[in-house]
Amino acid sequence: MERVVMKFGGTSVANEERIEKAASLIIEEVQNGKQVAVVVSAMGKTTDNLLSLAGEIHPDATERELDMLLTTGEQVTASLLAMAITAKGAAAKSFTGWQAGIQTDSLHSNARIENVDGNKVNETLNAGGVAVITGFQGIDTEGEITTLGRGGSDTSAVAVAIAIEASSCDIYTDVEGVYTTDPRVIEEASKLTEISYDEMLELANLGAGVLHPRAIEFAKNHQMPLRVKPAHTAGQGTIIKEEIEMETNLIVRGVAFEEDIVRITIMYDTPYNGSLANVFTALAEEHVNVDIIVQTIMEGEQPSVSFSIKNEDFAKAMSVLEVNKEHLGYKRADFEVGLAKVSIVGSGMVSNPGVAANMFDALRIAGIPIKMVSTSEIKVSVVIPTTQMNEAVAALHKEFALEQIR
Amino acid sequence: MERVVMKFGGTSVANEERIEKAASLIIEEVQNGKQVAVVVSAMGKTTDNLLSLAGEIHPDATERELDMLLTTGEQVTASLLAMAITAKGAAAKSFTGWQAGIQTDSLHSNARIENVDGNKVNETLNAGGVAVITGFQGIDTEGEITTLGRGGSDTSAVAVAIAIEASSCDIYTDVEGVYTTDPRVIEEASKLTEISYDEMLELANLGAGVLHPRAIEFAKNHQMPLRVKPAHTAGQGTIIKEEIEMETNLIVRGVAFEEDIVRITIMYDTPYNGSLANVFTALAEEHVNVDIIVQTIMEGEQPSVSFSIKNEDFAKAMSVLEVNKEHLGYKRADFEVGLAKVSIVGSGMVSNPGVAANMFDALRIAGIPIKMVSTSEIKVSVVIPTTQMNEAVAALHKEFALEQIR
Repeated sequence: MERVVMKFGGTSVANEERIEKAASLIIEEVQNGKQVAVVVSAMGKTTDNLLSLAGEIHPDATERELDMLLTTGEQVTASLLAMAITAKGAAAKSFTGWQAGIQTDSLHSNARIENVDGNKVNETLNAGGVAVITGFQGIDTEGEITTLGRGGSDTSAVAVAIAIEASSCDIYTDVEGVYTTDPRVIEEASKLTEISYDEMLELANLGAGVLHPRAIEFAKNHQMPLRVKPAHTAGQGTIIKEEIEMETNLIVRGVAFEEDIVRITIMYDTPYNGSLANVFTALAEEHVNVDIIVQTIMEGEQPSVSFSIKNEDFAKAMSVLEVNKEHLGYKRADFEVGLAKVSIVGSGMVSNPGVAANMFDALRIAGIPIKMVSTSEIKVSVVIPTTQMNEAVAALHKEFALEQIR
Repeated sequence: MERVVMKFGGTSVANEERIEKAASLIIEEVQNGKQVAVVVSAMGKTTDNLLSLAGEIHPDATERELDMLLTTGEQVTASLLAMAITAKGAAAKSFTGWQAGIQTDSLHSNARIENVDGNKVNETLNAGGVAVITGFQGIDTEGEITTLGRGGSDTSAVAVAIAIEASSCDIYTDVEGVYTTDPRVIEEASKLTEISYDEMLELANLGAGVLHPRAIEFAKNHQMPLRVKPAHTAGQGTIIKEEIEMETNLIVRGVAFEEDIVRITIMYDTPYNGSLANVFTALAEEHVNVDIIVQTIMEGEQPSVSFSIKNEDFAKAMSVLEVNKEHLGYKRADFEVGLAKVSIVGSGMVSNPGVAANMFDALRIAGIPIKMVSTSEIKVSVVIPTTQMNEAVAALHKEFALEQIR
């Protein structure tokens, strides 16, 4: 019998009404003859409310106790959703992470799933029941309750899908699927029917935000098809899998963008002497995430390195540079704020070397200055002024005819 | 090292402020050189709120799912209290019921504790930490989460105290301790320093309400001293244990009372023929709790039996009698509502046969008619009109000089 995992995030179970809507979607799948395992997040703002309660009591509580606290959120959703399914006439049973056999390492608040023992869930499925499982949580070998950190519930869903050998892992969201770019910004944005794991990974990492990269990677490693589906409409969503049927002319499949980027440039007055690695080691030690790195060494000029970070890490990064100035051996540093990153993504790029040139040309025609460039096999990113971000996205969406993609 | 269990009920952890107050009390005990395990209920109205949420989704949800839902309540309290203790500088770790090794049978919503494996809790205690354990819940041998039903958290506390060989199980409440009668009704009510398990059992069953009878019985069976202590004052509370130092003149140690009693009388026109048992079997099958039973068979008179029940069971009882009239073979039934039960309790009664007579006399002088009487070795109960209940309690409190008890 075909098995499927359905995952509902916090907004899709935010209140009684939405829980009942989710129950209806689940019952439909059961009536389609599928065995259904469901993975749920905490209702709406529950996690935030619990965190703020904890913050009042102990601003620096241990991760272990925060995990004990937060995991109650999904347990509430799971039991209520099981009740809602039962109220609609199907059998259902809720499971905590540990009851569902989700075993993790011991890193509280950011645990990794090590193994899922699907036996208990399979028992329920084989008996004709729906298994409703708490996402975001697991248990370590010592019996300690853990949470999975950001993207945890998506990751739980994929892990369960792999364990029970589901045919797909369906992530229900409040959007219609994955778009060529954000439809709130570009009206002509098209919903994609299919996209590859790698393309989705680039879009997810670039702030498209529908799915967490961690879950996509996990699905990719196990070739588990993911489906992003709307929770509130009848749309078919977007399927994410390895090989997609691509028309040859559809080289670029999406435009991603992200604000709040800062460029930092460090200049040396002596030739590059190997201390470059030191800069990034020092930043990494303070957990500053560096994105794009551009290094230029031209004869006769001062060597310099530029890199981009998020606004939120700016103060920390400057302090790292300041404190380590002598050790790092640079002459001076400068920075530019008010920047954004815009990227085009598509598996087809790898065999189409002209794509980056098309991109730069389109931006030049639109009068948008490029501050930094970074490329990968399926992506080209540029850093530009934030004030011109939307304009750039529109120009690129048009340049690559993304409004025609289906 | 001396070990103690401290139990905090829902009102004692109802908000952030009270959780911090509880943490302070716990730290005091740690500073007194004790190893402390704590058992907590859900915060204030949490359980009621969760139940009403469930009721909206499925008015008749399974007990299993309700257990999954409700057990989150204590887990939230336990983690927050552990954080509060840590914030005040002591080590603390929260435990769910299953993590604390509380194993129950499989009767969801009304499970019995079968065993407590205190190893994990002892580990934390021996390492100098406070173990904060969720009350009211456990796990069955199948890994299903269960709740213990009414009085569950008190029972959890006693079970943990027995498992870790604590010197006492201290139940923190919003009252100063156990009183000779309800101080809200009788101003002269005295707080008792000590009381025996059996006396406390009678008082608890009679509606004194400080401690659940189930927890008292459990403590009595294992000779675990219980202490009812105030959570918000420095009072020493009341200790409940087997042998108490009793002054010989203190025969009666408390007056308990309870409203909403109904008397039902069944009359037969033929001599008693064994069908009496049938009446109570029929009532028990419909879960009607019968309290006092008085049977009179006097020569030349019609045999009859009277019994008292709670108001809430009245309609069900009358319907049982109606439906089974032929089978039960009685002639007619009548009833009296608006009654109350008033009881005097004291271990000393067993050797003082005049106590009941004193009681009746005091009530006669006060002009209070007695409708039914029931006696046990340490208790005499009378059923009287509710309108005269407070008057009766005052008269009996005075008759037995309970205002002088300490």
